[in-house]
Amino acid sequence: MIENVKPKVLVVMGSDSDFTVVKECLKTLKQFDIEFTAEVCSAHRTPEEASALSRNAESNGYELIIAAAGKAAHLPGVLAAFTALPVIGLPIKSSTLDGMDSLLSIVQMPPGIPVATVAIDGALNAALLAIQILSVKHEFLRAGMKQYKENMKKKVNQKNENLKDLIEKEI
Amino acid sequence: MIENVKPKVLVVMGSDSDFTVVKECLKTLKQFDIEFTAEVCSAHRTPEEASALSRNAESNGYELIIAAAGKAAHLPGVLAAFTALPVIGLPIKSSTLDGMDSLLSIVQMPPGIPVATVAIDGALNAALLAIQILSVKHEFLRAGMKQYKENMKKKVNQKNENLKDLIEKEI
Amino acid sequence: MIENVKPKVLVVMGSDSDFTVVKECLKTLKQFDIEFTAEVCSAHRTPEEASALSRNAESNGYELIIAAAGKAAHLPGVLAAFTALPVIGLPIKSSTLDGMDSLLSIVQMPPGIPVATVAIDGALNAALLAIQILSVKHEFLRAGMKQYKENMKKKVNQKNENLKDLIEKEI
Amino acid sequence: MIENVKPKVLVVMGSDSDFTVVKECLKTLKQFDIEFTAEVCSAHRTPEEASALSRNAESNGYELIIAAAGKAAHLPGVLAAFTALPVIGLPIKSSTLDGMDSLLSIVQMPPGIPVATVAIDGALNAALLAIQILSVKHEFLRAGMKQYKENMKKKVNQKNENLKDLIEKEI
Amino acid sequence: MIENVKPKVLVVMGSDSDFTVVKECLKTLKQFDIEFTAEVCSAHRTPEEASALSRNAESNGYELIIAAAGKAAHLPGVLAAFTALPVIGLPIKSSTLDGMDSLLSIVQMPPGIPVATVAIDGALNAALLAIQILSVKHEFLRAGMKQYKENMKKKVNQKNENLKDLIEKEI
Amino acid sequence: MIENVKPKVLVVMGSDSDFTVVKECLKTLKQFDIEFTAEVCSAHRTPEEASALSRNAESNGYELIIAAAGKAAHLPGVLAAFTALPVIGLPIKSSTLDGMDSLLSIVQMPPGIPVATVAIDGALNAALLAIQILSVKHEFLRAGMKQYKENMKKKVNQKNENLKDLIEKEI
Amino acid sequence: MIENVKPKVLVVMGSDSDFTVVKECLKTLKQFDIEFTAEVCSAHRTPEEASALSRNAESNGYELIIAAAGKAAHLPGVLAAFTALPVIGLPIKSSTLDGMDSLLSIVQMPPGIPVATVAIDGALNAALLAIQILSVKHEFLRAGMKQYKENMKKKVNQKNENLKDLIEKEI
Amino acid sequence: MIENVKPKVLVVMGSDSDFTVVKECLKTLKQFDIEFTAEVCSAHRTPEEASALSRNAESNGYELIIAAAGKAAHLPGVLAAFTALPVIGLPIKSSTLDGMDSLLSIVQMPPGIPVATVAIDGALNAALLAIQILSVKHEFLRAGMKQYKENMKKKVNQKNENLKDLIEKEI
Repeated sequence: MIENVKPKVLVVMGSDSDFTVVKECLKTLKQFDIEFTAEVCSAHRTPEEASALSRNAESNGYELIIAAAGKAAHLPGVLAAFTALPVIGLPIKSSTLDGMDSLLSIVQMPPGIPVATVAIDGALNAALLAIQILSVKHEFLRAGMKQYKENMKKKVNQKNENLKDLIEKEI
Repeated sequence: MIENVKPKVLVVMGSDSDFTVVKECLKTLKQFDIEFTAEVCSAHRTPEEASALSRNAESNGYELIIAAAGKAAHLPGVLAAFTALPVIGLPIKSSTLDGMDSLLSIVQMPPGIPVATVAIDGALNAALLAIQILSVKHEFLRAGMKQYKENMKKKVNQKNENLKDLIEKEI
Repeated sequence: MIENVKPKVLVVMGSDSDFTVVKECLKTLKQFDIEFTAEVCSAHRTPEEASALSRNAESNGYELIIAAAGKAAHLPGVLAAFTALPVIGLPIKSSTLDGMDSLLSIVQMPPGIPVATVAIDGALNAALLAIQILSVKHEFLRAGMKQYKENMKKKVNQKNENLKDLIEKEI
Repeated sequence: MIENVKPKVLVVMGSDSDFTVVKECLKTLKQFDIEFTAEVCSAHRTPEEASALSRNAESNGYELIIAAAGKAAHLPGVLAAFTALPVIGLPIKSSTLDGMDSLLSIVQMPPGIPVATVAIDGALNAALLAIQILSVKHEFLRAGMKQYKENMKKKVNQKNENLKDLIEKEI
Repeated sequence: MIENVKPKVLVVMGSDSDFTVVKECLKTLKQFDIEFTAEVCSAHRTPEEASALSRNAESNGYELIIAAAGKAAHLPGVLAAFTALPVIGLPIKSSTLDGMDSLLSIVQMPPGIPVATVAIDGALNAALLAIQILSVKHEFLRAGMKQYKENMKKKVNQKNENLKDLIEKEI
Repeated sequence: MIENVKPKVLVVMGSDSDFTVVKECLKTLKQFDIEFTAEVCSAHRTPEEASALSRNAESNGYELIIAAAGKAAHLPGVLAAFTALPVIGLPIKSSTLDGMDSLLSIVQMPPGIPVATVAIDGALNAALLAIQILSVKHEFLRAGMKQYKENMKKKVNQKNENLKDLIEKEI
Repeated sequence: MIENVKPKVLVVMGSDSDFTVVKECLKTLKQFDIEFTAEVCSAHRTPEEASALSRNAESNGYELIIAAAGKAAHLPGVLAAFTALPVIGLPIKSSTLDGMDSLLSIVQMPPGIPVATVAIDGALNAALLAIQILSVKHEFLRAGMKQYKENMKKKVNQKNENLKDLIEKEI
Repeated sequence: MIENVKPKVLVVMGSDSDFTVVKECLKTLKQFDIEFTAEVCSAHRTPEEASALSRNAESNGYELIIAAAGKAAHLPGVLAAFTALPVIGLPIKSSTLDGMDSLLSIVQMPPGIPVATVAIDGALNAALLAIQILSVKHEFLRAGMKQYKENMKKKVNQKNENLKDLIEKEI
């Protein structure tokens, strides 16, 4: 019975400073009852660990990898090289170039090795994309995602209500 | 027996001119024995059709959507709004701005509605990402993907051999 | 008698956080005695509401739509898809890429569905453009706009006077 | 009876080389039965003529101005300075920077003087935006625009049909 | 005797908020004993005043114009259209796009009407360029410029000395 | 009698491949009866020659330097370092980055050493700016420049006439 | 006697299509009598081979690595991760984004793992930088480099001569 | 005995304000027991000193030059013009354009004169690249670099441990 086993995701960040952004991703995975392991691991400073993480991810029961990195953000692409699992790339904005370097280094992958890229600092979307991908197999996640979308609608509608008050006061 | 049913992918392109690029995506899906339907459908010119395609995709048996679009490329995001299926966005380079507009319009999705973005004109990678995502459920695709990666290695190695000859001749 | 009826504008923002910028737009519409409704409505989180807002705008008496959005700012284009009313797009600068993503996602609309785009965070200009467009029909707005332009000149001239003092003091 | 008078549009291009792009705009205006005058007039080489064109546009019966220009594309903004009519800016791609200079010079107008900007080389959209703006007053244009949108849908649907054949042949 | 008459420069800024940057330009002109008039004048809000300023600049005894502006910075180009005097353009960084819009709007002038562009926020260089241009005629400015360059060298050398101390302390 | 001596301009290009663009600059200088010397000289490959050219320019009777260069275009700035003459920088578009590298390398000069920058590949404007600068001293050039501006107007007006025919035929 | 052993360089390109650009690099290495091995090896398609090449480079007698790659160009950074040898990165311009993606993916390496980056498509400079680096140890290369620089000067001077003829004919 | 002599590096910064960034470079050189001289010297304000520094660097016993500069950052290229030593360029982010101007001015060097460019504000990497280059000759630096890489791994692993705690607390 597949659904007895929780889906497992491997989350790798290139630097511990990425945690501030990645936190929202982890919280969302947890909220959807997805098991995850998070690692600080660098494509450049710990390349052996990076390739090992990726090479063993499938046999360790992970179904998907999320990789966050900034600047010349090679981590998602490097992980993708060593696995047939889907890899989500999360570009982190660092102190120069406003995140453009991270984005291009992740999204412009050459033919053969795709990385599913989300927005710069888009940690929530990295988690939601993971959930959507895993929901191809795990029905409870599909259901959860639909519920999540319903809740978003309610929140937008609530904000819309609040706006009316705000306008009355401020305009 | 899940594997008796072929995985089905919906491929939508914003303009028929995108077909030149998208073709490689379709060929790759076919090569992996994935069933697909391809549609020309515009987020702006045929918005009702676009939302209907997406809203009904799951019940029509599709497990994933690939959307290709250029310029202010809203199609992937708009489709993602109407479904809980994973959506892959393929930015198409058009006649100005070298594809940067297509890329940013697709990848910079706001929190809540992710689009899995691949490189500009990265049609092959859109297909391979689809395969990797579907392989979370369909084991034969995981196996196929591994084989594909092996073949890529062989091709690179073959090209490496050819290079030696080339160097002998030209350097 | 057309001029008995106040012109009505629909203002839609993709997120309630856009209100800080959009406020100046609303104030200016009010100052010109234009009736408006402001809504928080997302092309991605509440797509049904977005299309309904736009589809019904004309029959609800709106003559023009202003849509503000950031990042992959699809809202203006999506609204434009569902109406024959003119749509003004206001790109909002968010936390990465300095507004370039919002701008390109709004202005680079494909052939067939234009969005009248103003500057990034150009909330005042969104309002003034609305007034200029509505003044094609509503003569009092044309007159108001001319007065507004005269006042701007006076303000610039006043600032020019102040500059002379400033220079005397500081240079 | 307002509808007896054809709506009149002034189309100004900064250089005669822009005509190749602007042509599609003029054809579309004609197709919608809008009267237009087209002028080559430069904000920099013939500034007196430019300001005169704009200053007199309203009294000459024009209801809207379309201005096309490339590089440091000041023409739309300069025309907007001299009139209360709505001004549509059409950025033309020239030989360097892929149209980014034209776009930013037109869209980033300072507070007070908006220009309704369309996509780089978006001549068709400049015309359609003009039609949508004029339709605020001229009902036959609103009707025409709705028809146009219906036709676009049909064309997309037709292209969708053709795609099926194409796929059968080429994939 | 030409040198009896002080050279006169017209400095125009598009907004009084530019004064913070332009101040350094004015101070430098004063330090070189150049007479200047500074005006707040907008190409878009006070276009008549702008063209008058430029058209009369030569007969009013100005030998050169410096124009500072931000965003779609048309002021330098517009002034250049109405005069045969050399015009220096100073792009001002505003709140979005990091000054790229100001720079391109000023430097990418079309053939026929050049603007001598300096760096974004380069107020000092605008003054120094003015001095170098005027020194073609006014010998005392050539001499002053040479002295200024000598002083810069001394300052750099002094900073170099200070660096040695700094390194001793901090490294 | 100052006007007996022809004004002299030094034109330096970083590579002989720049000549294709620079040619129009030289033709325009000749047309205005300005004496010029043109040199291929590289800031990087022949730095001694470059500094010598610049250091001796004033004593060799040159009143102004025009420097054209592409990529990391240091030549204008390097020449400006060695002279108190005004230096005009002409960025040349080369095979990558669409001229953005050339432009930024020339225009973003640090405080103290300005370069009067014109548009990418703006060879005509480099010449016209030189003429405007020299006309501060040489009255015949001021007169010539005014005549040139008049001719431009006539040409634009002529093109405007031609447009009417074109429209009759093609629209 | 160190100079008895030829310096050895490992040249790796991410795709055989890079050979067109890299060729000039190889020819230059050969011309300076540097022994080299050239490999097609991809950080993504053949990651094991890439890391092995780099890990064994030092023990195989290589003193330096040159790596050429396009798009999300991870190869130079990935090789740098596995070796203490200096790595030169050569960004290759591919079909979109004009080489900006390749450049940023190579040059923006995170702290700890530098890549010595040269210009986009700068194959000659990759070779010359290698020679300058190796000349820290190999004296004959220092001498060769000085000779090369002298020859460049002569070529520039020769081109300068040719320019005079060209000007006589064409201006 | 070569290893008795400490390797010597010349570090030049274009402005004393660069010291804040460059400090980390100097500390790292010191930590590796490399002798260095640091100079404030400007390619534009003190060009004679700059060329002298570079021209004499080899005979003064330097084996490599590191040059840091911002904006139109010519210093690394100018130094490279006067020496056959390898030159490392360190682009400094200044107040506009987010460091893109500095980067392009340094990395896009024309054929013949390479500069080994590192990331914007990448002071640590400038030092490490210097060490890797010098280690071609100086064996103790190769050993030191390997040790440094080992330490980096340990630090990343330590951070990875810390992450587990952080996640326990915050997620």
